[in-house]
Amino acid sequence: MLNHTYSATAEQLDAARQARLQIRQGYDRPTAGMVAGMTQVNMLSLPQEWAWDFLLYAQRNPQSCPILDVIEHGEFKSKLGQDIDVRTDFPRYRVWEHGKCTAEITDATSIWEQHTDLVTFLIGCSFSFETALMDAGIEVRHIHDQCNVPMYLTNIPCQSAGRISGNLVVSMRPIHASKISEAVQITVKVPQVHGAPVHIGAPHVLGIQDIQQPDFGDAPRILADEIPVFWACGVTPQAAVMNSKIPFAISHAPGHMLITDIPDREWMK
Amino acid sequence: MLNHTYSATAEQLDAARQARLQIRQGYDRPTAGMVAGMTQVNMLSLPQEWAWDFLLYAQRNPQSCPILDVIEHGEFKSKLGQDIDVRTDFPRYRVWEHGKCTAEITDATSIWEQHTDLVTFLIGCSFSFETALMDAGIEVRHIHDQCNVPMYLTNIPCQSAGRISGNLVVSMRPIHASKISEAVQITVKVPQVHGAPVHIGAPHVLGIQDIQQPDFGDAPRILADEIPVFWACGVTPQAAVMNSKIPFAISHAPGHMLITDIPDREWMK
Repeated sequence: MLNHTYSATAEQLDAARQARLQIRQGYDRPTAGMVAGMTQVNMLSLPQEWAWDFLLYAQRNPQSCPILDVIEHGEFKSKLGQDIDVRTDFPRYRVWEHGKCTAEITDATSIWEQHTDLVTFLIGCSFSFETALMDAGIEVRHIHDQCNVPMYLTNIPCQSAGRISGNLVVSMRPIHASKISEAVQITVKVPQVHGAPVHIGAPHVLGIQDIQQPDFGDAPRILADEIPVFWACGVTPQAAVMNSKIPFAISHAPGHMLITDIPDREWMK
Repeated sequence: MLNHTYSATAEQLDAARQARLQIRQGYDRPTAGMVAGMTQVNMLSLPQEWAWDFLLYAQRNPQSCPILDVIEHGEFKSKLGQDIDVRTDFPRYRVWEHGKCTAEITDATSIWEQHTDLVTFLIGCSFSFETALMDAGIEVRHIHDQCNVPMYLTNIPCQSAGRISGNLVVSMRPIHASKISEAVQITVKVPQVHGAPVHIGAPHVLGIQDIQQPDFGDAPRILADEIPVFWACGVTPQAAVMNSKIPFAISHAPGHMLITDIPDREWMK
């Protein structure tokens, strides 16, 4: 009774499943705009011994780390979709050792064989509000340009938890000055997928030296009278992995998300 | 920057501190209506070995267990108020052994001496929306009658997590039929203090046999043309302690809350 009843149509469920199959078979591109209207999620998997610290980190930093599912140690199925296998259903993964990215891979099955106690966190993604932005006539530049959203490591520390600390990562969308207020009003309604912007304009205040050199994703194309608008980003956990030198972790590669069976509009209820 | 800036007035902070002092010195009554407009919280403290399971339980059941602070093992200060000591600042505590309440006490200092690894969860309380209800002309009966809110153990299972499972506990306020829609509209805005009602009318659907015999708190006075309205309740963790036979735990006694330095309107932002 307190659970959501996810109201995807048969067509949406089929499209999501087909996309996962395509990804499982080797599709290796950023996923923004794929299966429009269906929720995509970020991932971080950690050894069980680190799971408490991370869950507490997420609890203390809900805007950057809104957890949509926790998959218990050794498991790889998710309640967010019927046939989801988190080992294969992201297009690309990053393997982390002592805070350094030591590999990018497209199939993580062998990782789960080697590390049998991984706890997996699936985290909301701002891609989930992009359909709503476009429905309101707000162009989402990286979808229009078919590239990856630009993401920046800021100088804003998150609340630490146990051994885990790190700075906030933000995604950026250039938005016409006349549309920014509406973008805030749309996104504030969906805290589970990062909610309202954390910052509008003045990138240097976030410690961003050059907006054309994002830390993750592709350089943005910013038009006249557009202002950079920044939202908390689900890559924030990866910044925490780096900063905290966690001995082992695996995450999605920025922008390369899992497509779930949950319609985006679920978060607008 | 992502943190709330709590905007209590000096008078409010002083009133909250005075109330905590009064409680520390022996005040032993339900706290609904005390220091109107300031957030009150539920508590559950567990040995560290159980903390992961409970944090996951809360993550999976956010409507009944919205966590406002996690106090790490052995600690007893909270970020929710400058001088808070969770060992002394609830009017009354329940001590739980293997799922049974074995004592009620008014000072828990000795518990923290005996159990040095307790992790403490402070959980939002529906008292936080009562001032807003009253401001809208909706009588909150248990405040008017100066008694404890009635609470019921329902037949609705929460999502389990690890070794922890249990049913939802609800608080009940009788509300005039003409005002219920407004009560929903007011409370839906504050998910961190349980949000909108989970059920309106028809108590038997929740497994409540006799509305005059609540499982916790006082029997309600229900007037003509009033309907019982049920909200998720922060006593739900105690139902989980009972059901899961957790070896040791300490909680607040139902209705006997901690008064924090956070204004209720903080949750309405």
